[in-house]
Amino acid sequence: MEYKVIFHIDEISRWELLLGNVENLLHAAEPGEITVEVVANSEAVSAYAPDRSARRYSTAMAALHQRGVLFTACRNAMNAGLLTEKDLEPFVVPVPAGVMELVERQAGGYHYIKP
Amino acid sequence: MEYKVIFHIDEISRWELLLGNVENLLHAAEPGEITVEVVANSEAVSAYAPDRSARRYSTAMAALHQRGVLFTACRNAMNAGLLTEKDLEPFVVPVPAGVMELVERQAGGYHYIKP
Amino acid sequence: MEYKVIFHIDEISRWELLLGNVENLLHAAEPGEITVEVVANSEAVSAYAPDRSARRYSTAMAALHQRGVLFTACRNAMNAGLLTEKDLEPFVVPVPAGVMELVERQAGGYHYIKP
Repeated sequence: MEYKVIFHIDEISRWELLLGNVENLLHAAEPGEITVEVVANSEAVSAYAPDRSARRYSTAMAALHQRGVLFTACRNAMNAGLLTEKDLEPFVVPVPAGVMELVERQAGGYHYIKP
Repeated sequence: MEYKVIFHIDEISRWELLLGNVENLLHAAEPGEITVEVVANSEAVSAYAPDRSARRYSTAMAALHQRGVLFTACRNAMNAGLLTEKDLEPFVVPVPAGVMELVERQAGGYHYIKP
Repeated sequence: MEYKVIFHIDEISRWELLLGNVENLLHAAEPGEITVEVVANSEAVSAYAPDRSARRYSTAMAALHQRGVLFTACRNAMNAGLLTEKDLEPFVVPVPAGVMELVERQAGGYHYIKP
């Protein structure tokens, strides 16, 4: 069976737990069985910026991206935190509004998890 | 496309984030595209009481209510916090159990977001 | 109408709130109307171990189990916390990965709530 999953994160302190959750989910699934997207909004987007002190999870994110995980960043949160697209890890995709992304993905059959 | 969204809040400290999320969602959507309900249970209901110190978001809530957002309050939480219907902002609608509201709305096609 | 609900917990500090939520949900539902499962992962699994200091909710859990609530524990989290199956309350069922359980249950029509 194929599953689509959207993880939601809005606190910097939850990144370690979230990345472990994604890792465990990929490990538990059959190859090709899972589509995973991580939507970061609010302060959590700052972990996407390699030049910020909040960036501690770059290597883990890049490895998950290599395995097909999509990382998206809320533009409202980027604007509030003075982050531009150039500040983001190269694999991160900005979306206009993180909450709308969460809604549209769920409408498209994604299951929601908030670590 | 039309979407229905239910936001869940059970911590007072999350109101500012939640109200910003709702604002961003309404801004991202086409007019009439989104139906939004906010369900507060546990300690979060106290922010609905204009006479309590926890009330800091009254203006923002009222503005969102004007734009069609439904704010509901769990009666179990109201009872636990000694809040009566008279204590609530006039636009807040009590529901018997916040968790049952979350379940019934999801069964009716609402998508869940927990900021 | 019949509903299926999956509660997610990954923080020890949220157990009291979660168990109250489940209690309120059962109380609000008609008999036989609700199927409830609680999935614990990350540090939250430690509350399932009667010999640990984190165990404070044993009686409440057992009473809810008697009323049909299923409590499951993520094996990844058990391994990380050095918990074995013998350490768990007798009514707790281990699952290979808590996040996969959350996904599969949602795919089976369960509604997600994260207290």
